[in-house]
Amino acid sequence: MKELLIIKIGGNIIDDEHALSAFLADMASITTPKILVHGGGKLATELSSKLGIETKMVEGRRITDEETIKVVTMTYAGWINKNIVARLQAQGLTALGLSGTDANLIPAVKRPVADIDYGWVGDILTDKINSAFLSKLIDDGITPIVAPIASDGQGHLLNVNADTIAQSLAEALSSMYDTTLVYCFEKKGLLSDVNDESSVMTEVSQKDAEAMKANGTITKGMVPKIDNAFKAISNGVKTVVIGHAGDIKQITQKQKGYGTYIR
Amino acid sequence: MKELLIIKIGGNIIDDEHALSAFLADMASITTPKILVHGGGKLATELSSKLGIETKMVEGRRITDEETIKVVTMTYAGWINKNIVARLQAQGLTALGLSGTDANLIPAVKRPVADIDYGWVGDILTDKINSAFLSKLIDDGITPIVAPIASDGQGHLLNVNADTIAQSLAEALSSMYDTTLVYCFEKKGLLSDVNDESSVMTEVSQKDAEAMKANGTITKGMVPKIDNAFKAISNGVKTVVIGHAGDIKQITQKQKGYGTYIR
Repeated sequence: MKELLIIKIGGNIIDDEHALSAFLADMASITTPKILVHGGGKLATELSSKLGIETKMVEGRRITDEETIKVVTMTYAGWINKNIVARLQAQGLTALGLSGTDANLIPAVKRPVADIDYGWVGDILTDKINSAFLSKLIDDGITPIVAPIASDGQGHLLNVNADTIAQSLAEALSSMYDTTLVYCFEKKGLLSDVNDESSVMTEVSQKDAEAMKANGTITKGMVPKIDNAFKAISNGVKTVVIGHAGDIKQITQKQKGYGTYIR
Repeated sequence: MKELLIIKIGGNIIDDEHALSAFLADMASITTPKILVHGGGKLATELSSKLGIETKMVEGRRITDEETIKVVTMTYAGWINKNIVARLQAQGLTALGLSGTDANLIPAVKRPVADIDYGWVGDILTDKINSAFLSKLIDDGITPIVAPIASDGQGHLLNVNADTIAQSLAEALSSMYDTTLVYCFEKKGLLSDVNDESSVMTEVSQKDAEAMKANGTITKGMVPKIDNAFKAISNGVKTVVIGHAGDIKQITQKQKGYGTYIR
């Protein structure tokens, strides 16, 4: 099977002009077929604040009311997405910006209200992802750039977690491609010693990861990333790499010492 | 050759929730392959105003500075585009939102500064339109929804006139399809008597149009529309119809008495 990379970047790259610029140059130089999934960064919060819309976060998730879904759609699917596309085009990559609602790419359902009403936040209907459309684009040499906005099939836009989109796309495409899912974050990989930036683990097994969660080496935002990584592997994804966006070239060239591998 | 409709709607529909809703229902019911090009409406001006960005218009064109290109990209390619896509998807149409930068669809050049510096406003490089990509989408049963944002090939986004995009796409696709370009505006067609809404002309010849411009029957915003229509015809477009968005079904069914035809 052909190789496919699904690369996810978050706010730490999007908000840092220098880092974003370097990352996009690296992206354009990668010859392996690829999909980029991007998060939102600070722009939505800044725009909300300027518009007098209060930003409410619960466990890292944005409570998305009527006004906030407009703000996140404008920033994620509008400015951030098109800015990335235009800059990749300038480097010779044929990039195509997409949200989950385009061509019904990522059907989702509004999260049911349990203890918390997240508003217009969506959960992905993973078995309904339009992987046929994505694979057509990829096989035509197009690089899809995916913003974390989906819709509910009833005309409402939904705010969806970008990590989960990347994972779901990697899983959905794993029957057609040897998929590698790369989660970019602010560290060079999973650290065996949280106080030592050079203690990047080359690989982590599920058993090791469980132990590291138990003893507090893996904490906070890294817990769902690691959990999703193992879920992705058990759902058909060949490799997950957790690493730094600045190392994306070395990671995609499979250079030893860059990123932590989960297989 | 197969038929293709290129339909352009402007702010008068986008800003009117009731009209937009009816229009999208009609759009979803049209079985002929089609492309929708949308303008911006009041949202960009409202957002600019809330953000304290002064809106400067010269001859109907928005002066687009660094902050304004962000605002128009967010509103046109973000909220308006994705809202339309999600609502068409809900009605069973496979819609795909695009800006001119996506897949290098509509390459453009920043307008040179003559008397006026329009800022990040673009003029389309008509002979470089990616019509092959559009025709692939159309032949796959996908309806492209195009926002009036393009890029300059150097990583900068540009604000491009939506009427001109519709015209350029219709021309570029006219070698592959029998293209009909439909300009929707607030009247039911070209009026032979500006004071009589029922005086809709069935057809207008270039000779008649020139006479009507000379005697002041065709004025203001209608002048470039009519000029573009005749240019489109001389560049291969089969038919141009100028009519009301509320009549889109009757227009696409070629019902007599709906819209003014230019051939």
